[in-house]
Amino acid sequence: MNTRISRVLASMRERGLSQFLVSDPKSVWYLTGVDVEPMERLFALLLREDGRHTLFLNNLFSVPKTAFHEVWFSDTDDSIGKIAAEIDGEAPLGIDKDWRAGFLIPLMERCPGMTPVLASDCVDGCRAVKDEVEQALMRESSRINDEVNRLASEYVKAGMTEKEVAAFIDAEYKKRGCSKSSFTTIVSFGANAADPHHRPDDTVLKENECVLLDMGCVKERYCSDMTRTFFCGKPDEEFIRVYNLVREANEKAEAIIRPGVRFCDIDAAARDHIAAAGYGEFFNHRLGHFIGQTDHEKGDVSSANTAVAVPGMIFSIEPGVYLEGSFGVRVEDLVLVTEDGCEILNREDKSLRIVG
Amino acid sequence: MNTRISRVLASMRERGLSQFLVSDPKSVWYLTGVDVEPMERLFALLLREDGRHTLFLNNLFSVPKTAFHEVWFSDTDDSIGKIAAEIDGEAPLGIDKDWRAGFLIPLMERCPGMTPVLASDCVDGCRAVKDEVEQALMRESSRINDEVNRLASEYVKAGMTEKEVAAFIDAEYKKRGCSKSSFTTIVSFGANAADPHHRPDDTVLKENECVLLDMGCVKERYCSDMTRTFFCGKPDEEFIRVYNLVREANEKAEAIIRPGVRFCDIDAAARDHIAAAGYGEFFNHRLGHFIGQTDHEKGDVSSANTAVAVPGMIFSIEPGVYLEGSFGVRVEDLVLVTEDGCEILNREDKSLRIVG
Repeated sequence: MNTRISRVLASMRERGLSQFLVSDPKSVWYLTGVDVEPMERLFALLLREDGRHTLFLNNLFSVPKTAFHEVWFSDTDDSIGKIAAEIDGEAPLGIDKDWRAGFLIPLMERCPGMTPVLASDCVDGCRAVKDEVEQALMRESSRINDEVNRLASEYVKAGMTEKEVAAFIDAEYKKRGCSKSSFTTIVSFGANAADPHHRPDDTVLKENECVLLDMGCVKERYCSDMTRTFFCGKPDEEFIRVYNLVREANEKAEAIIRPGVRFCDIDAAARDHIAAAGYGEFFNHRLGHFIGQTDHEKGDVSSANTAVAVPGMIFSIEPGVYLEGSFGVRVEDLVLVTEDGCEILNREDKSLRIVG
Repeated sequence: MNTRISRVLASMRERGLSQFLVSDPKSVWYLTGVDVEPMERLFALLLREDGRHTLFLNNLFSVPKTAFHEVWFSDTDDSIGKIAAEIDGEAPLGIDKDWRAGFLIPLMERCPGMTPVLASDCVDGCRAVKDEVEQALMRESSRINDEVNRLASEYVKAGMTEKEVAAFIDAEYKKRGCSKSSFTTIVSFGANAADPHHRPDDTVLKENECVLLDMGCVKERYCSDMTRTFFCGKPDEEFIRVYNLVREANEKAEAIIRPGVRFCDIDAAARDHIAAAGYGEFFNHRLGHFIGQTDHEKGDVSSANTAVAVPGMIFSIEPGVYLEGSFGVRVEDLVLVTEDGCEILNREDKSLRIVG
């Protein structure tokens, strides 16, 4: 934990920040080991260059004594006043992206000389590069995900509803000790798969429709996320062509991942392949996103991101082609950047498979 | 929906606000019917006194044509610039409590003449008073909750773990068409019940321990939330005394609820009863919270809230006594303020019941 805090402090120094308020509970846990689900209540860690790091805690939180300076308050106390008393009201204050206006605006009113500075990158940049403990947890979460994806592909049959298949997947995660799904499990049949964020409904699977499963679990706090697209019945020529195009785009992107490669170039490796086949306009989202304690963490694989890959980073590679009214295909893995390439955390077969 | 928007606009006028950015997806749905789960992406509704209400939408959101002015953007577009172009950069801008610093700070930098004003109450105040459609949905959600609470009380047995009982409850909700639990189901055995926010773990229920179930489901978007505390085995005198004290506190508070009563007085009705018996210091949280589309909505039943109850409001009444290392008792119902009193949405028996 101390190594992690040191990395954030170094990043604050680069930004010229002497104080930084971290509010994302997952970041606070990452830096302190203090595990709180604050819901609507105030919970934050103030990092200060002088080392007097302070935790702001509601007395309803069940937290054993920590190694930090602690400021406690009740639901009826003036908690914002307690923060104002601990910060330098004349200096810039780093704030992470998650702090809500319900706290930030009152603090600004209380400290008119304080300039809020969006400084999420100071901690998100650290969280983006997983240490060895985190890498092991991410591998295990994806191992479970592969296993459940395989079971779901064997389970799905014509006549089932999307909701039934989603419930099956969620229950299999629970059996394996997962606390929950890392996002609402996506099961899309036929034309529903043309909406990348379709939510499972009572649509019944019919013969000769695609089956898209985009799924992930949370195991020991860390998330997995993968997509496989199957076909129930006999796919026509266009589906086969699009399927292979998307799978190749996934593989082309994964093939160039190594330290130093720009994320926009990884995105282009997949996007150019799809565009060259005339389907560019039907791939309407970024290629991937970072992932860790939450399914979508700061950082993406997109044409706008000129940053480069660094060993320890974990992100998704998920090209797709969506043909409205007809079908959609997406093939997604998580990858871990290694010293000389990448490790693909999902091992499930990516060739076109028939289900049902 | 138009009635709802008119109520918010009236509230903005009272605050002297000509523009208000609503970001809570549940508020946006409440006002527009547009249903989006934006996750980390920008999604907001700008309400303007001149009636040119504007939705800001990422082109990944699947949203049919709306009756509002729509501004669309992609993941790589300058979405904050698009908001800046639609607001009056020299006037105060109402912001709801949920908007995150990751959007608010860049918008402030872009519009230095704009003063952000915390204006959540303009919409949260409307959401706090449920209309008839909402009341019916809340009743149904609590009816299911009562039913599953009863089943869980019959299911729990000595030798089971907290996690097992929580999984049972969650599965019963799913069987009844609930989308999910409205919060992490709390199952606490024995001394674990002394932590009001204990999360279910592998603790095994033993004879002569209490069983606290704090649970709720989401049905058709609307939440329920109730607590019953049972006893496995033969309770001793102190448990019986504390149990009855907490139940009486719950009933005393519910007995005085009617339009015009202050929330601090409802809180006092329960708190004074517990304090008079010498257990005041062990009831260390507010008496209740508002509830609707989320489990904890703006508004609480606490000593600090001098506002008065209004017909249509729905909130929890949940006194508790927590004796560290020993046991905890909480008894919680949801109540709906009616024209001349209140309707208690939970019907499950509150007398001390033996389980296992």
